[in-house]
Amino acid sequence: MKIKKETPEFALINQYFKQLTNPRQDVVLGVGDDAALLQVQEESLLVVSVDTMVSGVHFFEDVSAEALGHKALAVNLSDMAAMGAEPSWATLALTLPEVDEQWVAGFCRGFAELANRFNVSLVGGDTTRGPLSLTVQIHGMVAKDQAMRRDGAQVGDDIYVTGTLGDAAMGLRLLESTQALTAAQQKLVDRLERPHPRVEAGIALRHLAHSAIDLSDGLLADLGHILTQSGVGASLQLEQLPVSAKLRAVMGDDLDWSRLVSAGDDYELCLTLPAAGREAVSAVARQLSLPISRIGSVEAEPGIRCFDKQGAAWHPPQLGFDHFRTS
Amino acid sequence: MKIKKETPEFALINQYFKQLTNPRQDVVLGVGDDAALLQVQEESLLVVSVDTMVSGVHFFEDVSAEALGHKALAVNLSDMAAMGAEPSWATLALTLPEVDEQWVAGFCRGFAELANRFNVSLVGGDTTRGPLSLTVQIHGMVAKDQAMRRDGAQVGDDIYVTGTLGDAAMGLRLLESTQALTAAQQKLVDRLERPHPRVEAGIALRHLAHSAIDLSDGLLADLGHILTQSGVGASLQLEQLPVSAKLRAVMGDDLDWSRLVSAGDDYELCLTLPAAGREAVSAVARQLSLPISRIGSVEAEPGIRCFDKQGAAWHPPQLGFDHFRTS
Repeated sequence: MKIKKETPEFALINQYFKQLTNPRQDVVLGVGDDAALLQVQEESLLVVSVDTMVSGVHFFEDVSAEALGHKALAVNLSDMAAMGAEPSWATLALTLPEVDEQWVAGFCRGFAELANRFNVSLVGGDTTRGPLSLTVQIHGMVAKDQAMRRDGAQVGDDIYVTGTLGDAAMGLRLLESTQALTAAQQKLVDRLERPHPRVEAGIALRHLAHSAIDLSDGLLADLGHILTQSGVGASLQLEQLPVSAKLRAVMGDDLDWSRLVSAGDDYELCLTLPAAGREAVSAVARQLSLPISRIGSVEAEPGIRCFDKQGAAWHPPQLGFDHFRTS
Repeated sequence: MKIKKETPEFALINQYFKQLTNPRQDVVLGVGDDAALLQVQEESLLVVSVDTMVSGVHFFEDVSAEALGHKALAVNLSDMAAMGAEPSWATLALTLPEVDEQWVAGFCRGFAELANRFNVSLVGGDTTRGPLSLTVQIHGMVAKDQAMRRDGAQVGDDIYVTGTLGDAAMGLRLLESTQALTAAQQKLVDRLERPHPRVEAGIALRHLAHSAIDLSDGLLADLGHILTQSGVGASLQLEQLPVSAKLRAVMGDDLDWSRLVSAGDDYELCLTLPAAGREAVSAVARQLSLPISRIGSVEAEPGIRCFDKQGAAWHPPQLGFDHFRTS
């Protein structure tokens, strides 16, 4: 039962993990002691978020280790983006059924590529034996008055989303149903497996936004959290929802609103901000070469009202799935 | 594959978790947003550590949920103790095969009892479906020059351990081999299942100690980390190793050194500090009603040399186990 930590296999893993400890001046003591010692910037708040991914639940057992390493960090970076925080440090709790050096190397490659891009250093972790799963905690910093929360939306705010919606959900459907993927289909799968966290957009918009959330469970569900916690409602213009050319090519003119508004795993940002910020948003979108689409307005009446091109009300058939349903 | 977060079952779990969010002024924003916002004290370093426990690997599947909730937090608090840090916040990533309300309630009771005792607030988490495992990350603070690291031991330092050694390992042996436990035996099992993290001792000794570690993998293995990272060695007086009356009653006069020096799961502290600190250590021991035993000395020669009552050298048969052995 009792497990010892220092074994040849773990020494091997630790060698790979050392590649993830990007040097940062604010890491006083990193991996290798009972705990890490970290220096938070003056006048900043510490921002922390944790996410677990379980094999067969959050990812297919045969997903590439590199893609998994990317996504494990990406979903956490997306939470930093949603707060407007600058990411700094991560910890990784990795549970493996066995030590497969090639797998560990691939996982670390995927993790490191993203960590390097955002200057995130791995400062701690725990490696254990068991069914494959991984928990990443991300840490970041944000000035005290600039964090984007879910409870700040105000009546009259514009509602925006970054990027495009539904690509990842279509990627999942393709993975589940298609044997050989075309190049175009593979790009949708990439959106599922290698989401790009909108950290730069979060930082650029944090002084403008009244509220923000990242889209992991679908637009209606996630926007719903903002509205509920802010005590407001919203109307959405469905034809304003941003759809990628890739997704449009697959779906043709027969765009499925219900899928689009409930599509998960996009890891785009949904934000609300006052109409006075429209030009600033356009400037940020140009600067980042990232579509940031105005899709609706915050209203006093609770709930979300969706309208089509002709101004007719449209009602989504369902909002989500049962997390613990037997599959 | 894609999992939605907000379901009736999870709402239930979240109700229980809300009991764990102790109010602290430094929690600007806790559970319920994309990330928590936390205020680190000026002049302090942030101290973080993470540990995963997997069912069937780190605990028996039939362990009480309450004991598991206690231990999940305790092993992390022990890391704070080893740094001399004051714990403040925790996150909990909990993976459950199904939602059993009674189990969740028991788990939260065990977690909350310890969290309240040390004024630790749950500030974030993630609940997922999968094979039972849990990852807790603990956060604390320590003044910049007072953290106890593993790499600070100096030649001539005394070596101390808190509490007693080997109780938890004997508790594990009893659980594995004995059907009905006597009251005395149950007390040893309690030492395994409900370790008391030595947070107060760590804080009281941090200004005196040159180095510290908590004992999770056994005295020789853990002291070995201090010595290796400090570039020194040690000699130990075996008859000074602290043994509880409970353990002595079970083992009689036939004390098994090899078991005692490799016994895991004690979650006591091992510290080194200069001889000038002896009276201060005695005062702390009296104040905390906690044995703090001087068991040896730091020496320049690498390695650990053990001596028995007669001054004869004694060599342990083994130092640890293979983490990934097939059991």
